[in-house]
Amino acid sequence: MKEQLGEQISEWIRKKVRAAGAKGVVLGLSGGLDSALASVLCKRAFPNSTLALIMPCHSNSDDAECASLVADKFNLETKNFDLSNLVENIYETIEDQPYENKPSVPVGNLKARLRMLFLYYFANKLNYLVVGTGTRSEIEVGYFTKFGDGAADLLPLGDLLKNEVRELARKLKIPKKIIDRTPSAGLWKGQTDEEEIGLPYKELDQILLAIESDNLSGFDEEKVNRVEQLMNNAKHKRQKIPIFKRERSK
Amino acid sequence: MKEQLGEQISEWIRKKVRAAGAKGVVLGLSGGLDSALASVLCKRAFPNSTLALIMPCHSNSDDAECASLVADKFNLETKNFDLSNLVENIYETIEDQPYENKPSVPVGNLKARLRMLFLYYFANKLNYLVVGTGTRSEIEVGYFTKFGDGAADLLPLGDLLKNEVRELARKLKIPKKIIDRTPSAGLWKGQTDEEEIGLPYKELDQILLAIESDNLSGFDEEKVNRVEQLMNNAKHKRQKIPIFKRERSK
Repeated sequence: MKEQLGEQISEWIRKKVRAAGAKGVVLGLSGGLDSALASVLCKRAFPNSTLALIMPCHSNSDDAECASLVADKFNLETKNFDLSNLVENIYETIEDQPYENKPSVPVGNLKARLRMLFLYYFANKLNYLVVGTGTRSEIEVGYFTKFGDGAADLLPLGDLLKNEVRELARKLKIPKKIIDRTPSAGLWKGQTDEEEIGLPYKELDQILLAIESDNLSGFDEEKVNRVEQLMNNAKHKRQKIPIFKRERSK
Repeated sequence: MKEQLGEQISEWIRKKVRAAGAKGVVLGLSGGLDSALASVLCKRAFPNSTLALIMPCHSNSDDAECASLVADKFNLETKNFDLSNLVENIYETIEDQPYENKPSVPVGNLKARLRMLFLYYFANKLNYLVVGTGTRSEIEVGYFTKFGDGAADLLPLGDLLKNEVRELARKLKIPKKIIDRTPSAGLWKGQTDEEEIGLPYKELDQILLAIESDNLSGFDEEKVNRVEQLMNNAKHKRQKIPIFKRERSK
């Protein structure tokens, strides 16, 4: 039962936050589906101490509007920060060049990491934990910025494939407009998850399940290879940081 | 033999960077001992593709001078960025208050995380890995900023206690001035590691070894408790991010 799943997740968040001696949670609300669902689950866990940050950064105005739509419907406490000027200042400090000349990927990652700074500032100040909004589909193939949106204290959606996220969002009455939006990390104009991953989420999820159960018959070999390659390249993002260990026998 | 230890570490860095398909390494050079040692070991691993960033942020002028001293002696390629204005802008964006009113810890952490943004920008752009400079002494008690100076792709000094860092630094001819400096994370004026940890590194290291070998007789119980408490509180900084997992039996 999916409603049960939502309750399990909220209970898990509550348990983890209490075990850490913290008082609530802070998360980024992008206007996309994953952060909408995560916010609602957090709000159920901590009705009076869930803080959602809306942090557009050269984003479509649509993003902040969708974020506000969710915040209003579920009565979320929000703070709004437009990060566009800051990311321009950072880029221009680094490169001593106008922002227009920026390379997409390094600057996209700067944006994701700058958001992390804001989330952790409030986590420090309020004694909250940072909730990440990554799903299993994204985590397995490394579709996130290391130490950016990948940086969090808890990952409550990390067991859910994208279609499970959609299903649970429907049960929890998240507005259809949010559920039907094209998934995008929003790091540059026109970016879409599915184009970058190279597969629709539906196929990605089927392949992830097939890899897990080691039953790949009937799947397109090229697509399976693509997913396995992404998973392999992303290992460093999911592992603990490698530490040198000396040879003790000497 | 300590020189052998240095060679082992440089070889490990080389191996890890090559395995990642990367071309070199970037790290922060603070003017302190750990980053001086890490830089020299990186330079031996990658003589032509080691980049050291000097990033003062409301720091003592001494810090950048010591960083330059190391860079000159070992012929390191450096880039200098003063982050003071940026961190003020970030704080004032968050709080809408003058920087003078800032709280020490959240803003200290902002500085450490902002440095991470710069390191990863160059890692992205140059296809380098980020080398962290944390030692075993610091990692075990969590004396670092989560996703700040704690964020890296490799931790080459993570097996070394502070006195081993000093010893290896002497063998590698790191200037005495650097070796003799009072260790400080440099996140606010007058901060020293030993005051914050609550123990001199010498005692901390002895207690860490005693805990490892489970032989605590003769140690001050209060100090041992202090170290065990720090280690316990820091667990979340050393572990993988917890992910919710549903109960599969249902």
